Amino acid sequence: MSEKESINPQAMPDVQASKDDRNVHIDKVGVKDVVYPMKLATKDGGEQTTVASINMYVALPKEKKGTHMSRFLEVLNEHDNQAFSPSDIPDIARKIKERLNAQEAHFEASFTYFIAKPAPVTGQKGLMNYEVTFECTANCTDDFVIRVAAPATSLCPCSKEISEYGAHNQRCRIEAAVRVKDTMWIEDLVEHLEAAASHPVYAVLKRPDEKFVTEKAYENPKFVEDIIRDLAVLLNEDDRIVQYDISSENFESIHSHNAYAELSRDKRLD
Amino acid sequence: MSEKESINPQAMPDVQASKDDRNVHIDKVGVKDVVYPMKLATKDGGEQTTVASINMYVALPKEKKGTHMSRFLEVLNEHDNQAFSPSDIPDIARKIKERLNAQEAHFEASFTYFIAKPAPVTGQKGLMNYEVTFECTANCTDDFVIRVAAPATSLCPCSKEISEYGAHNQRCRIEAAVRVKDTMWIEDLVEHLEAAASHPVYAVLKRPDEKFVTEKAYENPKFVEDIIRDLAVLLNEDDRIVQYDISSENFESIHSHNAYAELSRDKRLD
Amino acid sequence: MSEKESINPQAMPDVQASKDDRNVHIDKVGVKDVVYPMKLATKDGGEQTTVASINMYVALPKEKKGTHMSRFLEVLNEHDNQAFSPSDIPDIARKIKERLNAQEAHFEASFTYFIAKPAPVTGQKGLMNYEVTFECTANCTDDFVIRVAAPATSLCPCSKEISEYGAHNQRCRIEAAVRVKDTMWIEDLVEHLEAAASHPVYAVLKRPDEKFVTEKAYENPKFVEDIIRDLAVLLNEDDRIVQYDISSENFESIHSHNAYAELSRDKRLD
Amino acid sequence: MSEKESINPQAMPDVQASKDDRNVHIDKVGVKDVVYPMKLATKDGGEQTTVASINMYVALPKEKKGTHMSRFLEVLNEHDNQAFSPSDIPDIARKIKERLNAQEAHFEASFTYFIAKPAPVTGQKGLMNYEVTFECTANCTDDFVIRVAAPATSLCPCSKEISEYGAHNQRCRIEAAVRVKDTMWIEDLVEHLEAAASHPVYAVLKRPDEKFVTEKAYENPKFVEDIIRDLAVLLNEDDRIVQYDISSENFESIHSHNAYAELSRDKRLD
Repeated sequence: MSEKESINPQAMPDVQASKDDRNVHIDKVGVKDVVYPMKLATKDGGEQTTVASINMYVALPKEKKGTHMSRFLEVLNEHDNQAFSPSDIPDIARKIKERLNAQEAHFEASFTYFIAKPAPVTGQKGLMNYEVTFECTANCTDDFVIRVAAPATSLCPCSKEISEYGAHNQRCRIEAAVRVKDTMWIEDLVEHLEAAASHPVYAVLKRPDEKFVTEKAYENPKFVEDIIRDLAVLLNEDDRIVQYDISSENFESIHSHNAYAELSRDKRLD
Repeated sequence: MSEKESINPQAMPDVQASKDDRNVHIDKVGVKDVVYPMKLATKDGGEQTTVASINMYVALPKEKKGTHMSRFLEVLNEHDNQAFSPSDIPDIARKIKERLNAQEAHFEASFTYFIAKPAPVTGQKGLMNYEVTFECTANCTDDFVIRVAAPATSLCPCSKEISEYGAHNQRCRIEAAVRVKDTMWIEDLVEHLEAAASHPVYAVLKRPDEKFVTEKAYENPKFVEDIIRDLAVLLNEDDRIVQYDISSENFESIHSHNAYAELSRDKRLD
Repeated sequence: MSEKESINPQAMPDVQASKDDRNVHIDKVGVKDVVYPMKLATKDGGEQTTVASINMYVALPKEKKGTHMSRFLEVLNEHDNQAFSPSDIPDIARKIKERLNAQEAHFEASFTYFIAKPAPVTGQKGLMNYEVTFECTANCTDDFVIRVAAPATSLCPCSKEISEYGAHNQRCRIEAAVRVKDTMWIEDLVEHLEAAASHPVYAVLKRPDEKFVTEKAYENPKFVEDIIRDLAVLLNEDDRIVQYDISSENFESIHSHNAYAELSRDKRLD
Repeated sequence: MSEKESINPQAMPDVQASKDDRNVHIDKVGVKDVVYPMKLATKDGGEQTTVASINMYVALPKEKKGTHMSRFLEVLNEHDNQAFSPSDIPDIARKIKERLNAQEAHFEASFTYFIAKPAPVTGQKGLMNYEVTFECTANCTDDFVIRVAAPATSLCPCSKEISEYGAHNQRCRIEAAVRVKDTMWIEDLVEHLEAAASHPVYAVLKRPDEKFVTEKAYENPKFVEDIIRDLAVLLNEDDRIVQYDISSENFESIHSHNAYAELSRDKRLD
């Protein structure tokens, strides 16, 4: 009999299943930074394959010693090769909850999302990449969160106002985490983020496009405070969103440190 | 008259001071990732110079267009070369609040802290490095937060139990952010973090020390759940701490992903 | 006439095309960290879509003032949605060279690659992720480089030898950059990397698998020196490889720093 | 007799000292990412304490099985609390070589270095932080390398030329690794790096300074190619430098990717 045949999993001690008497409930326990391919439905009806870094956790009641980590990976394997849109994520979180016999389960996936964006004058297409995270807690479908970060241009109003010519400008990173009640596409949130900046950025710009972007940014100067306020106004008006956390970090071209602003609003508390 | 003499700052427009009508309050606005030297008082009465990454923010009321970013740096410059202990941080936060005419100010500093630690058998000393963050909100001295992360060893109880010999073990990163009412030294919090692991790690270990650490870790197996629960028990018993967020991330030696657990407790809500 | 129609690209000054008299040749100039989807042929005849971070450079002769950055992106766009194997990369590098009128072009793409790997006892499949980089210089097809990093387990021979029981072990990161003359699949290089460790790591391990991996690693202790030497022996015997740079970094479970070793060999110089 | 007293280090097997028959020489083996305080002499005669990430390696001949990792840390501990200038580093490398009985030793230390820099108009002082690395190989004092990276402003000549007003500009990161034959201060190399940009950046800028920097950068547009060529010209003229590798990475404010250029020159080969 080979070594492999001689192993009987049922006969092996299940250390995780034993009792615990420390009286400490654990909010989240599970696996972190699982790298996995992910197929997403896109707003235009297509689909896109990307690479996600995934965290999966369950709540562990105080009397249970441990959780079974390998089961998280088994749930993930069952979803292999299926395209899912943001609205499918709650199903995965629920499946984790069931398979781990937990009262609450968390699923988080962070990935790069691509949107083909035409240059503003020549129309030449280029793929822009955005950092996106989906966060979902099982049984709380109202609580699904989409987090998107978009690079953009910010041009300083003070520098423009006080200088004879020119104005310092720089790449900034605008981020929003929105709690939604209806389906909201990544594309929809990117639109809000880019509208709040001095100007969006692009993958491909020919000379007429570069002229256009340079001049439009100069005509639309914004402090980090303006970016975040204009974004807040846009998210306030979008009824799909019930709560949000937003920030902008500007990688100042005249300093070695960054300008930063953040704010949160929960419309349910108004 | 030279170009420099001709500039009159009082005559330049102060764009930040103008009125804003978007009706959006900003929670935090300021400077991020300012790298700065920092001198700290140590528990044994000495002092230590390190390099900090500092964030300084103020709350901005809805009617004010912008904040004056250069003033944050001026406050920092005034504190240059003074050793401060955790209990001095609230003063800096208050000074920011005053100089920026804000109702709330935030100061965060993240830095490396060194503790000389003797090897467990030979007593040979080595400098251990810990990642520390101080977070403080002005006028809320009860709300001062010390965050410390310590590397440590975790050895898997399941692997030990089911295997004829050996047990997988790995470096883990145990972190605690504690809200304190009395002075608590970084050294005190490190002690709790390292006590919760299978064994602390060291900068220098000679062979007798390596034998000792290997055997002691094998005698003290802990799941990521055990580490975080044992840490919770220690922090529950420490009356200086009123609230805490703790986590452990184990860089599993048999997987390419990590095991992770976290929990929070606010003693004021009990 | 609209603003967009009024722009005539031919009439705009082409600053990059002017002459330069500083007498300085530039080795590499171009675009860095372009994030882009990438489709790859796999060894088993399938294909895989991933996300790459791409650098594209050309050499710039001393008399030319600048290069046209947008053309790099245009070349990349033409290759959109085509699966390519390592042997197709030289074509992309050559196309960059032609479109940019350069004497030398460089193409580098770093991406996550997945391989389905069965657990050693139960055979349960899990997706392992590897960091891969392809590097190619145009017109030098002998000079194509594949760089792969694999996580693995290392178990310390000294700790095992001197301890009554147990042995410290940890995740390590083994990396090889190989210059090949024939097609070599990523899968082939991963096989060499994992064979050099105390044991490979896995995405999914059930308890019988965990017992197996724990015991096998204990039976196969290796210093960082052993890992790198065993890998060198394997690469020496593989005739597809003409030159290599290899390293291993062990994230020591008993220290806060890492053990590291590296070596290079060029078989053409023997 | 206690457990600790019973251990006799001389009686423990020295696994590292045994023979190896794989016939593989190792270029570098040692410890990586050791975090350690470091005291440096400054050009103005003062001294500065910072935090370094240190790598220490030796070459290992093919017949020797392993190196003694703890000795690297012991050498480091002996240098604790001594201020050293770049010219002292070769001594440390030589001491490693001797204590490890090696034919070659490498010492690398990466750290933050601060320089007080007055704002260009108001003269208000602010601390600028630079990333510095010292690299030294024992017995090769001609081979000491100083690597410094400085943030700076770059303003695009094409954008300025083709636009009615404004010009895109951004933070860039200019880096030089120089092999020197005479003492060269970090301050000296920073001066070269900043002279090559459209304009240096600052920690503190009041409004008259911001006006000055904005206008001066607009008057001094530079492609990434110009920055690197102007830096090459400066380093060519500095006779302390015998070889250099330089690069600039511009975090383009109108793109999500970066513009990059690099070149190397060895004056000894001219």
